[in-house]
Amino acid sequence: MNPHLFENGWHPTAILGAMGAAAAAAKLFKLPGEKVCMALGIAGSLASGLRQNFGTMTKPLHAGRAAQNGVMAAQLARRGYTADPGIVEAKLGYANAFSGPGKYDLNKITANLGSPFDIVSPGVGLKRYPSCARTHPGIDAMLDLVEQNDLRPGDVESVACAGTYTTPTMLIHSRPRTALEGKFSMEFCLALALTERKVSLPDFRDQKVQDPKIQELIRKVTFSIRPDLNTIEHSGNPSTTVKVTLKDGREFTKTVDEARGTPNNPLTAEEVRGKYRQCVKGIQPQKEMEKTIELVGDLENLKKISTLADLLRGAQSR
Amino acid sequence: MNPHLFENGWHPTAILGAMGAAAAAAKLFKLPGEKVCMALGIAGSLASGLRQNFGTMTKPLHAGRAAQNGVMAAQLARRGYTADPGIVEAKLGYANAFSGPGKYDLNKITANLGSPFDIVSPGVGLKRYPSCARTHPGIDAMLDLVEQNDLRPGDVESVACAGTYTTPTMLIHSRPRTALEGKFSMEFCLALALTERKVSLPDFRDQKVQDPKIQELIRKVTFSIRPDLNTIEHSGNPSTTVKVTLKDGREFTKTVDEARGTPNNPLTAEEVRGKYRQCVKGIQPQKEMEKTIELVGDLENLKKISTLADLLRGAQSR
Repeated sequence: MNPHLFENGWHPTAILGAMGAAAAAAKLFKLPGEKVCMALGIAGSLASGLRQNFGTMTKPLHAGRAAQNGVMAAQLARRGYTADPGIVEAKLGYANAFSGPGKYDLNKITANLGSPFDIVSPGVGLKRYPSCARTHPGIDAMLDLVEQNDLRPGDVESVACAGTYTTPTMLIHSRPRTALEGKFSMEFCLALALTERKVSLPDFRDQKVQDPKIQELIRKVTFSIRPDLNTIEHSGNPSTTVKVTLKDGREFTKTVDEARGTPNNPLTAEEVRGKYRQCVKGIQPQKEMEKTIELVGDLENLKKISTLADLLRGAQSR
Repeated sequence: MNPHLFENGWHPTAILGAMGAAAAAAKLFKLPGEKVCMALGIAGSLASGLRQNFGTMTKPLHAGRAAQNGVMAAQLARRGYTADPGIVEAKLGYANAFSGPGKYDLNKITANLGSPFDIVSPGVGLKRYPSCARTHPGIDAMLDLVEQNDLRPGDVESVACAGTYTTPTMLIHSRPRTALEGKFSMEFCLALALTERKVSLPDFRDQKVQDPKIQELIRKVTFSIRPDLNTIEHSGNPSTTVKVTLKDGREFTKTVDEARGTPNNPLTAEEVRGKYRQCVKGIQPQKEMEKTIELVGDLENLKKISTLADLLRGAQSR
């Protein structure tokens, strides 16, 4: 369905996620095949989420709703609720409505399905930075350039970034005003990497985005489409090149094909733990934080999932 | 946005209804303008509903979800939740995503907005029959023909129905197998009108739809596009012609432009009361039924809406 789905303005996490969640919940409920179809049929009518809301609070809502919609669809199907059993491929159904008439490939849905599951290979990506994944290879490149060449923001004349043609359609906030918009801004993320030499959650604040020094750097960043990544076949390739030109004329260039945190370039276990600590700092007390890390690290041996759930909702400390 | 919205596979009740409900809830919350925009922005990302599910339980779910989505959007906006403030007209927004790029007319949204509100003029339609509104003029025509000419199902050779080109795209079940599919079947509704001389809720049962006599009549019904109703300008005109041909060669024809229950051809107050009694029979006890009718008939003088709400949820009888 992609990139048509995406180009039509839909947020894939929301639209595809509802179906994924419905399938997973239907599996957990051990529903028979016909009820799995009903669950997908219901989920198809619940799935929603517009990309225009990227950079607002509604964007993360899409992910939660996708999960909720899928679970609700499976719960309804379990109780005998009905929907069209061929919702994906039907004329007035899911794929046509979201991607456009015929702009999808049914074969790709079932090709290699479960052999292996994507969660096994290529595996799961874990984001190193709290921003849109499309900013990650650019951030990696900038951090490498800054560190290797000891670049200083004040010495920079311009930053030229180049990648696939779909990246600017995802990173819609080239002139961000809020932290949420900054998450969808290659310009802000590169300015932040150059200034702070790291890209971490505490810096995604409105104040930081509005900082005059950051705003000045944002205006120095341009994005262009790399000639080798201007076709639909390469639309999903996030390979990104960053070229920093200093005021003294020197140029530094770096290309990152696979960002840190992607399956082929995974984070270390300690980096994952570090990210968790960063995310819950000030929300979860230190002791519960470390206990959570311990339980998740040995999840397959956890006897009751409620032990983890209680910990996460702070039930023990109330 | 219509008929593009509709032709793309979306259920307008679900898609437009979410925005209507958000606007209404925002008004009741007395939200300031910018928060009304946020409510619409959130609702735009919640709105969903595929026409492929017409004829299944998921279709009526669309209406309830539209209301729920609108209320939730307004509640979130009231608490400061954010979304794109220009969701309707934005490039990656609501109108483009659901109708297709540029396939909408923004001017029509604001033209005559509130002067008067549609709820005042043309007014509200109340369905006489428990089936898709597009079946109603055809049903009216058939009931008139049956009554005026004392038609008997066994004497009928064929039934030719003709109307606007969008009607068959709404009535997608020309060969219905269930009662829910029968609601979206001109064929079933006309067969029922011819057989029962009325079209009422108790007859929308799977068993009735599957009745061999009804199925035989269904196969005698054809639908064609009336030449004067084959353009987009007339896409919303439900004027419908029914021609019944008897085995003895006699023909009877009737055209209904505005079905009973539409604002220009309203039901009487007693007919509305009768429909309510039909709908809640076996669900609400007689006494509560009549009390509900009394309260709704004088709604503007009801001191507390909870009096009605309690009555409807059966709180008094628990």
